[in-house]
Amino acid sequence: MQTLWDYRFAQRTQRMTGSAIRELLKFTEEPNVISFAGGLPAPEVFPIEEFKKACVRVLDECGPQALQYGTTDGYIPLREMIARHSCRYGIEVTIENILITSGSQQALDLLGKIFINPGDCILVESPTYLGALQAWNTYGAEFIPVPFDEDGMITNELEDRLRTGPKFIYVLPNFQNPTGVTLSFERRLHLIELAERYGVPIIEDDPYGQLRFEGENLPALNVLDSQTRTQNGCYSGNVIYLSTFSKTLAPGIRLAWVIAPPEVIHKLVLAKQGADLHTATFNQMVAYEVGRGGFLDRHVKFIRQVYRERRDVMLDTLQEHMPEEVRWTHPMGGLFLWATLPPKVNTSDLLKEAVKKRVAFVPGQPFFPCGGGQNTMRLNFSNATPEKINEGIARLGSVVKDFLMQK
Amino acid sequence: MQTLWDYRFAQRTQRMTGSAIRELLKFTEEPNVISFAGGLPAPEVFPIEEFKKACVRVLDECGPQALQYGTTDGYIPLREMIARHSCRYGIEVTIENILITSGSQQALDLLGKIFINPGDCILVESPTYLGALQAWNTYGAEFIPVPFDEDGMITNELEDRLRTGPKFIYVLPNFQNPTGVTLSFERRLHLIELAERYGVPIIEDDPYGQLRFEGENLPALNVLDSQTRTQNGCYSGNVIYLSTFSKTLAPGIRLAWVIAPPEVIHKLVLAKQGADLHTATFNQMVAYEVGRGGFLDRHVKFIRQVYRERRDVMLDTLQEHMPEEVRWTHPMGGLFLWATLPPKVNTSDLLKEAVKKRVAFVPGQPFFPCGGGQNTMRLNFSNATPEKINEGIARLGSVVKDFLMQK
Repeated sequence: MQTLWDYRFAQRTQRMTGSAIRELLKFTEEPNVISFAGGLPAPEVFPIEEFKKACVRVLDECGPQALQYGTTDGYIPLREMIARHSCRYGIEVTIENILITSGSQQALDLLGKIFINPGDCILVESPTYLGALQAWNTYGAEFIPVPFDEDGMITNELEDRLRTGPKFIYVLPNFQNPTGVTLSFERRLHLIELAERYGVPIIEDDPYGQLRFEGENLPALNVLDSQTRTQNGCYSGNVIYLSTFSKTLAPGIRLAWVIAPPEVIHKLVLAKQGADLHTATFNQMVAYEVGRGGFLDRHVKFIRQVYRERRDVMLDTLQEHMPEEVRWTHPMGGLFLWATLPPKVNTSDLLKEAVKKRVAFVPGQPFFPCGGGQNTMRLNFSNATPEKINEGIARLGSVVKDFLMQK
Repeated sequence: MQTLWDYRFAQRTQRMTGSAIRELLKFTEEPNVISFAGGLPAPEVFPIEEFKKACVRVLDECGPQALQYGTTDGYIPLREMIARHSCRYGIEVTIENILITSGSQQALDLLGKIFINPGDCILVESPTYLGALQAWNTYGAEFIPVPFDEDGMITNELEDRLRTGPKFIYVLPNFQNPTGVTLSFERRLHLIELAERYGVPIIEDDPYGQLRFEGENLPALNVLDSQTRTQNGCYSGNVIYLSTFSKTLAPGIRLAWVIAPPEVIHKLVLAKQGADLHTATFNQMVAYEVGRGGFLDRHVKFIRQVYRERRDVMLDTLQEHMPEEVRWTHPMGGLFLWATLPPKVNTSDLLKEAVKKRVAFVPGQPFFPCGGGQNTMRLNFSNATPEKINEGIARLGSVVKDFLMQK
């Protein structure tokens, strides 16, 4: 039903669409559904005891500060911790390069706010992270998909697209959401070189980089870019890097960060002042208290083991239960893998059947900025226990077989 | 120094200005400065012990939920608590009317995002809350100031302005920031009637309503509006109401809420999905745990006593130390009062002298959307202790006297 309010909304509000995934999650929360649909970390790995101790300590030792308003750029000891951590991975930054955000989604939103004029083009992997499309759509962005394979964005396809004058390139180089694919070293170098040649900035979204189960760590794009671009320890290059505590500590505290040249951080701070003043002081102090003294490193090792086992179980059971025509990625880290079914299968239709059999996934189509992917699906392996994964993939395999027979 | 980044920012980024107040706060944080400049609650009233107990209990009893992703609209028990609380003040709402935000600043930003097209006009009190101007400026809003006196917005001046087709009216009816002034009952009725006649919505920002020290509580604008507009317990009227836990529990947890018709909440939820997914689950559960069982009511009574005393001390010492030509408001609640100096005084110049004498305030000019108010200042009485207020106003009085003599 239309009401008068519908005539009062701004034009950009027409471009706001609900996350198809969030809508689907409602379905999948019914009892007994084994869901591979969400992007949730395993609740079993949350360091609850450490959080308890940290809350008590922060409130005992600096309660008045922790509960008071804070600065927009973020709690300095937390930014120092992030700077030290970044240096270990080869990127020299100071706290002037770092802004704390209320989750990475806020970083995406603020970047859209400061960079995107209506009609601006953005180069994105296809498929890519849905939340970025949602955030930037509101600011009037147009998306130019770059083809993608098992080594990530096909950088040989990039040059023509760079000539169109895009505002920036958005890339998830490690264990990408939704596919689990990692951008190869050669392509990283190529991407950096092309971005430099055409003067187009890169937004590097890296929520999962710490969660590598196997293979060697590949340098971040901002590390490759920074080798000639660091002045007085302060990064001033072409890449804006995002990461988060959501996958290593907990998503329910909404803490992430942006690493960028100081002039970009300055504009992000102005945008954040208007958007939410600052990220919760208490949460920043608690996260610092939980993470410091090496706990974060030890904890990440533990998460890697848990998720590696779950990925292995999912790969094994897919092998066992899926018909031959189905293919899937073999992620070396992260939370997701990606399955491709025969072209005749529409995974949105398949989902309806799957939910009847008490198993759920996310159809791949919404992750494609310009359509396609009707026969794909994203499977999350971090949230369900190995037993549930076993049972859930067995169910899904039988749903797929039935579905293929009917077609 | 300009860098190539400066050519990449969006047009709207040109409209982002730092909060003059936040810049000034840097000055005022020097040691021994008694600052009436910020808008900070008294840290002495933060319920630190209750927060500690609540954190431990939430983590013990529902740690995995508290640290996990949550829904965009917010934690249901917290929204139910807010609905019950609102009903006690005469406004019938259900949780369908309520969205939890990451502080009221986020509510202002999201409202700007869903309502404001570039060039849209907004009617505002003059002076008004700076954070709203900042948030909406980014979306291309133009502001039409409505004259203001000791009874708030002068509603007799409203009708011509309503004919210009503004997008909405923004008003802080209780102990307004920056003036401390309260909108009179008669003007509330008049405002509601005019808004209804011209079909212009009202955004009612009420962070301080609970902090009344004296006089009778006046009905909120949405209460006055709702009497003919509630269907099945669900508010569907012309007023969007904002409030917050920042002044009653603590600002450092960044928790506030919007009450609006369901179709507005629906759009706000879409905007919030893109902006930060959701407000920290942990913070919402902890605030609910702290607030429930009547604690919030008892605690607010305590805060009122503390702030009332501080206001009284400030009024008394102003009387004692300020030259005759200076006038100031007598707020019946809230955190601020407003002083007006002789027209020849520029309070930005005065501030430089004041900081030398180790006392600070905020010059009033930035609160005026279209200029003016060079001879005004905002004084915060909630943050400093009575002793500091005494000493600080004595210092300020002598600075003002010296300044007037030199002119």
